[in-house]
Amino acid sequence: PRTRLPRVGTTIFTVMSQLAAEHGAVNLGQGFPDFPPPQRLVDALARAVSEGRNQYAPSTGIPALRQAIADKTLACYGRRVDADAEVTVTGGASEAIFDAVLALVHPGEEVIVLDPCYDCYEPAIELAGARAVHVPLDPADFSVDWQRVRDAISPRTRMLMVNSPHNPSGAMFGAADLAALRGILAGTDIVLLSDEVYEHIVFDGRRHESVLRDPELAARAVVVSSFGKTYHCTGWKIGYAIAPPALSAELRKVHQYNTFCSFTPAQWALAEMIRDEPGHHEGLGAFYQAKRDRFRRQLEGTRLRPLPVPGGYFQLVDYSAASDLSDVEFCRWLTVEKGVAAIPLSPFYQSPPAGQRLARLCFAKLESTLDAAIERLERL
Amino acid sequence: PRTRLPRVGTTIFTVMSQLAAEHGAVNLGQGFPDFPPPQRLVDALARAVSEGRNQYAPSTGIPALRQAIADKTLACYGRRVDADAEVTVTGGASEAIFDAVLALVHPGEEVIVLDPCYDCYEPAIELAGARAVHVPLDPADFSVDWQRVRDAISPRTRMLMVNSPHNPSGAMFGAADLAALRGILAGTDIVLLSDEVYEHIVFDGRRHESVLRDPELAARAVVVSSFGKTYHCTGWKIGYAIAPPALSAELRKVHQYNTFCSFTPAQWALAEMIRDEPGHHEGLGAFYQAKRDRFRRQLEGTRLRPLPVPGGYFQLVDYSAASDLSDVEFCRWLTVEKGVAAIPLSPFYQSPPAGQRLARLCFAKLESTLDAAIERLERL
Ligand SMILES: CSCCC(=O)C(=O)O
Ligand SMILES: CSCCC(=O)C(=O)O
Repeated sequence: PRTRLPRVGTTIFTVMSQLAAEHGAVNLGQGFPDFPPPQRLVDALARAVSEGRNQYAPSTGIPALRQAIADKTLACYGRRVDADAEVTVTGGASEAIFDAVLALVHPGEEVIVLDPCYDCYEPAIELAGARAVHVPLDPADFSVDWQRVRDAISPRTRMLMVNSPHNPSGAMFGAADLAALRGILAGTDIVLLSDEVYEHIVFDGRRHESVLRDPELAARAVVVSSFGKTYHCTGWKIGYAIAPPALSAELRKVHQYNTFCSFTPAQWALAEMIRDEPGHHEGLGAFYQAKRDRFRRQLEGTRLRPLPVPGGYFQLVDYSAASDLSDVEFCRWLTVEKGVAAIPLSPFYQSPPAGQRLARLCFAKLESTLDAAIERLERL
Repeated sequence: PRTRLPRVGTTIFTVMSQLAAEHGAVNLGQGFPDFPPPQRLVDALARAVSEGRNQYAPSTGIPALRQAIADKTLACYGRRVDADAEVTVTGGASEAIFDAVLALVHPGEEVIVLDPCYDCYEPAIELAGARAVHVPLDPADFSVDWQRVRDAISPRTRMLMVNSPHNPSGAMFGAADLAALRGILAGTDIVLLSDEVYEHIVFDGRRHESVLRDPELAARAVVVSSFGKTYHCTGWKIGYAIAPPALSAELRKVHQYNTFCSFTPAQWALAEMIRDEPGHHEGLGAFYQAKRDRFRRQLEGTRLRPLPVPGGYFQLVDYSAASDLSDVEFCRWLTVEKGVAAIPLSPFYQSPPAGQRLARLCFAKLESTLDAAIERLERL
């Protein structure tokens, strides 16, 4: 059949969540917490709705939320951004990415993406009439070989997409990565799209090396984040893009004709939450690190070998000792037969490394949920 | 500067709402009610949030809401649609339109739009790499000359976009329009995109001629609507697309990588609202007709001549007796100097009729708001 996206089916997150529901599996697949947002935020939302914040927000987002984002950016990354001209509230980070690609990439151009990467990047590039050029990450630790990125640049390269902490691997950029990025992009007109939705979920004292820390990079970057991961409300779909005025202006042209604005009451609630508890995100690393550490200890009792998790809320496991199946087959089997849903890695790849046997488990769950999963995983 | 949308600035709705706020004008510009959603819906939302409906919804929408939409479609238009394969919940009707165009229209193709039309249609067409072909409506009553539509069809025509009740004019299709559409489209592979967001706001005993009433048309149509207009919650941005399975499948591919899903708690709240009060929309015509009639009577005391309003919540007025300014200038002057914000008609047009002096006033307002506006308009 006629299609704009010939290689796209239903996203793996939907497929595995459906399969999990059908088979009553513990769902460690699609990444979402199974615990609630902070009560303060829940209360603020109920208040916003009953106080009449139910009509269109300004397309770019309500000023109080944009200012809260600007304030947080200054506090976290030392970067002053203009809430009016450089911050745009969107329907989750995913809409921000979609808008940015459609607004900034022209037909016939190229966008460099790292392989593996989150599955929404390439369809947006295709819809823009452009071509994704994949640069493989090191299969050992998901680090970037910046020389390969440099080699992938052509006169048609318009955008480079990066993601730290990285989904699915949890790998994080260090200061040297930002320096390499700076060197590679200097003198080009390539836009850097930096997906930083796990910015506050970082472990072992690591520092999130936001592109916003670096003035040279920030001057050419669209930095995307979301409240879903930080406030345990992935279904609220409120994200944002920070970009210099000229890039924001183009992104906003697309945004205003795509969703126009995002759920107004949640914008008021988030602005209030951030105002009243500006330090919420500071506790997030420790909160998730406790979950990560406990889950990893539990995994020692299984035949799944956990890989390091520098950031994010996903645990990659090598299942070679448990099964010879391909990752897609293994995750289906795990869900259907063993009652634990996981996400295979190959859907994140253009070219999965031969013989790689990795699955992704989300540990943004209650201890009781993780315990139930472990009990089943121990029987593998 | 480099741009994908060279002819697009900030949407007129944003421009006029900002101007209204700056000058403390009564805002009859951008279309939104200044009264709250039904209390039942507000309560249901607070409940959904506190009961933990805060994580990702299925990308296509929660089953209960899709089923409620299917049930309503059967009840209102006698058409049975499959809630699983044919209904997709989106970030307002605007995202549904954006997704449909990007998913179904290929670069180099043409999309026929009626002139004037809502301002998000053409940017979506441009981003798809296609070309909008404008067919003027009759300037007297905004009716469609179907022969002109037929003449506009070329081998490259992929889509025809229609909108009834029509924004900005309120004009409505009659049964003859559906018959003409059927004749024109028979034997082509043109997709019909029907924007029906004002479907329940119809007056004087008129019947909304949904494309869904007609099996032949429905078999090739994407019908788009929204809860914002029906439940007085334009800021909730929950809309939907109804389309045959093959068209829905393509639209969903784009939707899943654009916003993925819409604000989950509102989906639960709307599903509950529709279940508990399935007749809510039946009262909407009378509710708004009372506002329309009162407002039109009040306008008799001004130098603004009201045009007929068959449906929707906008009153067009001819201001020739009050001013020689162009419509954009008149609406700025009215906002800044006279304290009433209105929307000029020309931004809805590719080719505004020469000398046309029309402005659009939204009457989805409290009587006190309309009274305040009239008091100022009487002084023109
Ligand atoms: C929008 S569904 C995917 C959620 C997510 O970020 C993930 O599981 O990687
Ligand atoms: C999304 S802002 C425009 C609202 C509207 O539908 C209108 O005013 O026509």
